[in-house]
Amino acid sequence: MRLDILTLFPEMFSSLEHSIVGRAQNSGKINVNFHNFRDFATNSQKHVDDMPYGGGQGMLLMPQPIFDTLASFPHEKARVLMMDPAGRRFDQKFAEELAKEEQLVFLCGHYEGFDERIKTLVTDEVSLGDYVLTGGEVAACVMIDATVRLIPDVLGKKASHEDDSFSSGLLEYPQYTRPEEFRGLKVPEVLMSGHHENIRKWRLSESLRKTLRLRPDLLEKYELTDEERKILTTLENEPLLN
Amino acid sequence: MRLDILTLFPEMFSSLEHSIVGRAQNSGKINVNFHNFRDFATNSQKHVDDMPYGGGQGMLLMPQPIFDTLASFPHEKARVLMMDPAGRRFDQKFAEELAKEEQLVFLCGHYEGFDERIKTLVTDEVSLGDYVLTGGEVAACVMIDATVRLIPDVLGKKASHEDDSFSSGLLEYPQYTRPEEFRGLKVPEVLMSGHHENIRKWRLSESLRKTLRLRPDLLEKYELTDEERKILTTLENEPLLN
Repeated sequence: MRLDILTLFPEMFSSLEHSIVGRAQNSGKINVNFHNFRDFATNSQKHVDDMPYGGGQGMLLMPQPIFDTLASFPHEKARVLMMDPAGRRFDQKFAEELAKEEQLVFLCGHYEGFDERIKTLVTDEVSLGDYVLTGGEVAACVMIDATVRLIPDVLGKKASHEDDSFSSGLLEYPQYTRPEEFRGLKVPEVLMSGHHENIRKWRLSESLRKTLRLRPDLLEKYELTDEERKILTTLENEPLLN
Repeated sequence: MRLDILTLFPEMFSSLEHSIVGRAQNSGKINVNFHNFRDFATNSQKHVDDMPYGGGQGMLLMPQPIFDTLASFPHEKARVLMMDPAGRRFDQKFAEELAKEEQLVFLCGHYEGFDERIKTLVTDEVSLGDYVLTGGEVAACVMIDATVRLIPDVLGKKASHEDDSFSSGLLEYPQYTRPEEFRGLKVPEVLMSGHHENIRKWRLSESLRKTLRLRPDLLEKYELTDEERKILTTLENEPLLN
């Protein structure tokens, strides 16, 4: 996969080198290119932003530097992504979709908003959530991390995405590692029983309980097996003690 | 505000130095401390993770290094935050709440999950959205960016958060800067009219239109003024041409 990132602050992406993205780059699975759009500004002061027509606070990125930067590299089949609170909400399904693409382009503004005409270049307006960030860079880092780990063979033995919370559609069951008892807090006995079927049932039941209590909306989209339906009926009649 | 970040990869936060967080640090508004919890592991190999009881893929962070790291600095009144898909969804209201705190502690796991007992240390389990990341670091960067910019006097003249999309409760109206015409794409005439009242009305109407079409859920929580209610009635009867 080829990644092209339009930003005034390429150094803000250095964090990715230490993550899965660095590994994916080293193994040739992805190829990341940064484009500082200030280099493409045609005005003599190399300005990339200007005041909004009609007044108001803040500055806006001008169309020219962004249009010309994008025209400087091939991107015919690319998804061109821009952060916008009105955009499609980023989620696991979106990440899975992006992981199949050959090229992703990220337009990152910092402090400034975008001149509306820049949106004519964009294939996807994306929202990470209902909050405001100082720039698109940290948001792009999140999307890149979530996407790149789904590219085949990027996650090695060290981790796996088959057990991911949002891959099964349920929240994950509680997990424990050594020691058996830590400052009075014990690991549930069933997990140390070695009884695989009981462990499987306990985990499934805990996943369903957690999802039912904390994210019942996830169950609406989830196709229950007969076994899960039975467990859920029991859980729904259970008093809310913990 | 004091920030304490528990992570095996403090270098993943270097991106923040280039953002508003760096400015807030330089001006003394915030004070960021990193704690590599591997330094606190008491086992001779300095391991911080181990296999899950009951079997399964992936590794889990052990309780001891995290408990001891947290005990090594004062945090009596701190919010202790951990990323968890089952947690409270991070949004602007959450960021505003955190911006008022004196101390925030972030527990960041990387690849690994957390032993369930670590959650006894945590005041807030937070979810950034329904997607999976390789680690808590990029998620913490997003939360820190969204929070720090709301601390009084952190955002200077360069930007303002009064016009933020989620502060008004509506999506932002389209914005334009120079030139008036760019490759055939023109700035709406009203914005160049100099007629402040018409500009205000146009912007309000565009904000309402965008919110109605793309995020009608936001309108459910929004208290409409009489003027807004009138505009909205007109918009609801308007054909969906653009």
